[in-house]
Formats: sequence, structure tokens, C-alpha cells
Amino acid sequence: MRTLTVDLGDRSYPIYIGEGLLSKSGEYFLQHQLTTKSPVLIVSDENIAPKYLQTVVDSLQASGYQTVSSVVKAGEKSKSLDVFEEVMTAAIEGGLDRKSTVVALGGGVVGDLAGFVAASFMRGVHFVQMPTTILAHDSSVGGKVAVNHRLAKNMIGAFHQPAMVLYDVDTLQSLPERDVRSGLSEMIKHGLIWDEQFAYWCRDNADRLLALDREALTYGLTEGCSVKAKVVSSDETEQGLRAILNLGHTIGHALEAIGGYGEFLHGEAISIGMAAAAQLAVNRGRDRSIYEETTALLAKFGLPTTIPGHLNDEEIISAMLHDKKFKENQIVFILPVRIGEVEIVSDMTLDEVRQVIKQLKGEGQHV
Amino acid sequence: MRTLTVDLGDRSYPIYIGEGLLSKSGEYFLQHQLTTKSPVLIVSDENIAPKYLQTVVDSLQASGYQTVSSVVKAGEKSKSLDVFEEVMTAAIEGGLDRKSTVVALGGGVVGDLAGFVAASFMRGVHFVQMPTTILAHDSSVGGKVAVNHRLAKNMIGAFHQPAMVLYDVDTLQSLPERDVRSGLSEMIKHGLIWDEQFAYWCRDNADRLLALDREALTYGLTEGCSVKAKVVSSDETEQGLRAILNLGHTIGHALEAIGGYGEFLHGEAISIGMAAAAQLAVNRGRDRSIYEETTALLAKFGLPTTIPGHLNDEEIISAMLHDKKFKENQIVFILPVRIGEVEIVSDMTLDEVRQVIKQLKGEGQHV
Ligand SMILES: NC(=O)c1ccc[n+]([C@@H]2O[C@H](COP(=O)([O-])OP(=O)(O)OC[C@H]3O[C@@H](n4cnc5c(N)ncnc54)[C@H](O)[C@@H]3O)[C@@H](O)[C@H]2O)c1
Ligand SMILES: NC(=O)c1ccc[n+]([C@@H]2O[C@H](COP(=O)([O-])OP(=O)(O)OC[C@H]3O[C@@H](n4cnc5c(N)ncnc54)[C@H](O)[C@@H]3O)[C@@H](O)[C@H]2O)c1
Ligand SMILES: [Zn+2]
Ligand SMILES: [Zn+2]
Repeated sequence: MRTLTVDLGDRSYPIYIGEGLLSKSGEYFLQHQLTTKSPVLIVSDENIAPKYLQTVVDSLQASGYQTVSSVVKAGEKSKSLDVFEEVMTAAIEGGLDRKSTVVALGGGVVGDLAGFVAASFMRGVHFVQMPTTILAHDSSVGGKVAVNHRLAKNMIGAFHQPAMVLYDVDTLQSLPERDVRSGLSEMIKHGLIWDEQFAYWCRDNADRLLALDREALTYGLTEGCSVKAKVVSSDETEQGLRAILNLGHTIGHALEAIGGYGEFLHGEAISIGMAAAAQLAVNRGRDRSIYEETTALLAKFGLPTTIPGHLNDEEIISAMLHDKKFKENQIVFILPVRIGEVEIVSDMTLDEVRQVIKQLKGEGQHV
Repeated sequence: MRTLTVDLGDRSYPIYIGEGLLSKSGEYFLQHQLTTKSPVLIVSDENIAPKYLQTVVDSLQASGYQTVSSVVKAGEKSKSLDVFEEVMTAAIEGGLDRKSTVVALGGGVVGDLAGFVAASFMRGVHFVQMPTTILAHDSSVGGKVAVNHRLAKNMIGAFHQPAMVLYDVDTLQSLPERDVRSGLSEMIKHGLIWDEQFAYWCRDNADRLLALDREALTYGLTEGCSVKAKVVSSDETEQGLRAILNLGHTIGHALEAIGGYGEFLHGEAISIGMAAAAQLAVNRGRDRSIYEETTALLAKFGLPTTIPGHLNDEEIISAMLHDKKFKENQIVFILPVRIGEVEIVSDMTLDEVRQVIKQLKGEGQHV
């Protein structure tokens, strides 16, 4: 078992990564002084609950906790205010109070949804993340929680740090292949923004990672979480550095939104976004190898690096305008400098974005 | 003009109370370094907007701000997730970004709703309170923001302090009489929990306050805000002392909920709740004069002190169970010790509450 720490003063918390952790949930709860006097709400989704909910319930109950649960539909569409209200109803009917804990047992969707419930139920209660996807190594760390608005992703949310992250890697064995790839996209991102060696390690271990080799996974998730934890520790509420975690996300979020949160998985959308960022860097004078290395790495994981032709360029632009507000026709973008290093660029123009969309559709001229 | 300060370290902020302040909104915005580069969203309701919105818009625009507005239906029903989503849509369509400011121009309903929008739009933007009711001298100070859940009041919210409170007492002249009384109920509460002299001042100046005498109002609001500011400064997130602000609110919130948020105004419901708290204190051995003085004071303002017979006792109890969770059949209550002083009692039983409900219906035996 590995333990990392997210260092945030009196809101610091540990990330436990290892096997068989769900069946020890109760012990971890007690160790973290979460009260047994108030009910615990476990939020999960229809795919995950049948597999793992009972294990968590049994362990918590054995440690003296009373539990209630709320199982939502699987998929990004559950990150909505309607489902948020459903979960709130479960919290109220389950008799939760100000001292209660809300648990997210699931991927990034459940984590973001349950986290916003924890942030706003009675103005904030304790929160525990139990990630069950690879992608959630990213989403479960850092305290960003949110639901989507019809017009743009993650518009409605809070910063609400968990009391701990309990990452049982056993659960990953049941992940559908497409979600495996999608999750690895964020792992690669952590290499690309921060750690050249780790990026190349990902490339060289693509097959093991895709085959869900436990040792490779544990290593990759620990490294990924560790990059995330470092960045978040130095800039909790995204005043500066934390923005680098958004590599690929400006265009990625726009693609998710215009795909109706159904066409692309999050990791797929940001894979395209990372390819776009690399192309933008090249368009601005970086060596073409940055684009080639980035897309080759992503392609090794079967991740997409082009924009499907049927998507409308101006719809992508307009979704992006909602997401991260251009100011005076300029927008902040994260661009690679080389593998393992990025820069925050704040003068990207709409025309440059229009150009890269065309390039990623194979319509424009590659530089 | 009077200025008070809510003392919360780097989240401290001023409360400005005076005449003609709305027409100086823009100057106050500039003075508080709120950026002119990002659009400002003004949230108001259908009664208030026709009277005061244009003044604020004109002043902000004259100072270089771009404004958008969202006008919701008047009344407690607008403190819902549905209306919250509407306001979020206005924020997104209005092009707000992370540096934007959300303004609440209205009473407690608009303040709580707009405040929760400010707390959660893009995970939190600046917030300015421009209260237009007497009641809002309470709600605009302290950073508690929330919407209601069908099952219980204020269940979904956050702590989100404003950058300033701009309280233009001129607006109070157009308040409907019932809202004047309702608002004075919270003013009286501030006397009852903290300041004997102020409580008696309220009693002796009831006629001037009800007649909206500007001098009396300004004095009463300043004293009321000052009690609130002191309590909040010493306990921002209600770990202890802040609970005394809930005098009358346990039963009050239950009455509001079972009245479908339509039968009672907030101040009316807590007036009944304060009478109930005084009766509970007497039932527990305090001198009967505490009940008589409290109800006489409230009656001088035309505020209700009895529970209407048509309300079902067990429905009141069950709404209360949702609101402030009984633990092992006991609940925290704020009870008067004497006029100007309260205590936090944490062993109130359901049976004692049942008894007081009967007493306030005129059914039970008064002690
Ligand atoms: N908060 C953050 O900082 C942050 C960071 C990155 C991503 N995100 C968000 O995360 C979300 C994507 O997360 P995700 O990819 O985990 O999506 P997800 O939660 O929808 O999970 C993907 C799919 O896998 C299923 N699943 C989950 N665990 C499983 C398991 N162990 N076995 C079998 N099936 C399982 C789910 O039911 C779902 O169908 C997006 O909404 C994204 O915006 C948030
Ligand atoms: N956040 C807190 O700490 C806190 C504290 C106390 C109360 N509250 C909340 O405040 C709410 C009650 O506030 P309220 O009584 O101000 O209600 P409100 O906002 O509904 O205003 C009362 C009525 O007066 C109208 N109105 C407002 N200003 C006016 C004006 N200047 N001229 C004419 N009409 C005007 C409104 O349209 C409304 O019909 C409740 O939801 C309560 O829970 C919150
Ligand atoms: Zn992401
Ligand atoms: Zn109140």
C-alpha cells in the first residue's frame, strides 16, 4: 500500500493506494475520526454499486457506522442539478446531519457529483473519495467538485477537499476497455505537464497499463496522483500554477459539451485537446516533434487525436466561449514547451483556435 | 452613513448603512477593487427590479461596469434549485467569468439565492449584498447562503462572505406592511439574544419603526447588524456561539416548511418560534415573565405568537426532524435566560416540543 499526502495545512489529507482497501473502509473511517453517530451516505452508480457497494457497507457497518446509499445512473449525464437534487433527497431522507460523511464510490462522475453534495448539504459535511476508475486518480484528488450546466461543463461547483482518498486498485479490473483508455489519458497528462520521465514510462508501459497489470497500474496511479497532489498543494484554488492541470481541457470540455456529454468520454476529449495544444505550440514556433511525440504517445493508448468532421467549428468555439470565457478575444491556454513541461499562455486568439480546429479535422495545413 | 465591519481576517468586509447608496453603487464597486473587465450579474425579484434595478445599473455603468440581470419571481419559492439553475443560465449567457461579481439586490430570498449562485458559479465568484428589506439586515450579513429543498429549508448552500453590504435604507419606504413586521422580527431577535437595552429600545420605538421613520430604522438596523456582525466574527461557520442566532428558528423553519413556504413569512414564523422558545424556558423552570415579556414585545409589532390550530402537530415535529436532526430523541434549542440573554440547550426532548406546540395552539396547559 502506498500513501501520498495532499499538503493543505489543516485541510491536508492522505491518498491510500493499494489492494483490498474497500473491505477495510470502516477501519480507515475510524482512524480518521469520522463520527459513528451520524449516518454515512454512499453515492455510487448503477455499474459500480452491484460490484462494490456491499463490501463498503459491510465494512462500515462492522465498524459501527449506519449507512444509506444513493445509486445514480452511470455516465456524465448524472453530473446534473437534477441528479444532485435526487442525492440531496436521499441525504435528507437518510437523516444525515452536519457531522455526517458523504462517500463517493465510483469514477469521476460520482466523485464530482457526491463531492458537490458534500460541499453544499447543510453548507458542507465531510467527504471521502473511493475512486473506482483510472481517471479518478485525477478527479478524486484536489477538491474540485461540480455538476454540469446544459451550456457548459463543471459550471456549478465548489472547492471541497476530502478527508481521505481510499483507492482500491482491485476495482479497476472490472473497468470497460474504453474507460481504461480514457483514464490513462489523464495519467499521460500528468507526465506531459510535469515529468518527462514519467511520460516516457507511460509510453514504454502502454501494453502493461492497458492490460491492467496491477504493478504497472499501482505505479502509474501513484505517480499521477503525486503530480496532482504537488500542483494542488501549491495552488489549491487555481490562482496560478494549478491551471497547468487543464492541458487539453479547453478544447476537451467544448467537445464534451457539444457532443451532449455522450459522444466523447472525458479522457478521449482531452486527448484530442492535448493534441490540439501540441499543434498550437507548433503553430507558435515550437518544434514539430512536440506534436508528433504527443500524438504518438496518445495513439499508443488508442486515444483519439483528431476532431471528427461532423462537429461544427463554430459550435466548438462557442462552447469554449462559455467554458473559459475569452477576454477581449483572447483566452488562457496551456501549451507544451517539451515533453514534461508546459507553459501558461494568455494571449491565444480565436483565429488561432479556429485554425487548429481545422488542422485537427485534417482540413487545414499542418505547419 | 454608518459603517460596520464584519471581522473575518482576510475575508473581512464592511456594511454601509445609509441613504442614497444605490445610486453610488459604481463608486463603491471601484473602491472595493471589483474588476470592470468582467460582467456583473445583478439578481433581483419582480417587485424590486422595477423600483431599484435601473439605479444600480446606471451607477455601475457610469463607473465602467458591464451589467446583466436576472429577475426572479418574488417570494420564498424562488429559493429553489430550479430558480438557481435559471440564474446560473443568466450568468453563463451573460458571459460571466471567474473574476465576475454577483449582486443580490433584494431581500433575504434574493440574497440567499444569489449568494449560493456566487458561491458555486465556476466554484465561486465575488458577491455583493444590496439588501432592500428590513429582514435582510440579518440575512445579508454573515455569509450563510442557501436554497431550500422541498423537504426542509436552507438544506443546500454554502458559507460565502460578500465583499461588502451596501444597505440603502431609502428602499425600505416601499416595503409592504407585512414585510416590515416580518423584518422587525429579526431585529427584535438581535435584542433578545444579545442586548437587553436594544430589546427595550425596540419595544419603546415600535410605532416609529412600524412607520418607517428613517432615523429609528437606521439606528435599529445598525444595532441589529452590529449584533449579527459580532456573533459571526467570533464563529463564522457555526461551531458554537453562532447557534444563538437561531433563536426561534427550529420551530420557525418547520412552520415555514409545512406551510409550503407560503403561509408564513420568515419573520412571522420565527416570531412564533421565539414565543415557543420562551414558553419552553418557562416549562423548564424560568420565570413566567420571560414568556410574557417576549410575547408582549412581539405583539407590539403585530407579530404572531401562537400556532394556528389547523397545522398538524406531528407534521411540525417531522419537518423539524428534517431541519435540525434530532440525535437520540434530543435536539439543540436556543432558550432565553432573560431578555437580552440566551443559552444553548442540547437535551430538548421531542415530548417537550410536543407539549409546547399544544401550548402555543392554546390547547395545552400553560405553566
Ligand atoms: N474533479 C476533478 O478534478 C476532475 C478531474 C478530471 C476529471 N473529472 C471528471 O471526471 C469525470 C470522468 O470520470 P470517469 O471517467 O471516471 O467517469 P465515470 O465516473 O462515468 O466512470 C466511467 C464509467 O465506468 C464505470 N465504472 C466506474 N468504475 C468501474 C469499475 N470499477 N468497474 C466497472 N465499471 C466501472 C462507470 O459506471 C461509468 O460507466 C468527468 O465528468 C470529468 O469532468 C474531474
Ligand atoms: N442567510 C441568512 O443568514 C438569513 C437570515 C435570515 C433570513 N434569511 C432568509 O431570508 C428570507 C426572508 O427574507 P425577506 O423577508 O427579505 O424576504 P423576501 O426577499 O422575499 O422579501 C420580502 C418581500 O418584499 C418584497 N420587497 C423586497 N424589498 C422591497 C422593497 N424595497 N420594496 C418593496 N417590496 C420589496 C419582495 O419582493 C418580497 O415580496 C428567508 O428565505 C430566510 O430564510 C436568511
Ligand atoms: Zn480532466
Ligand atoms: Zn432568520
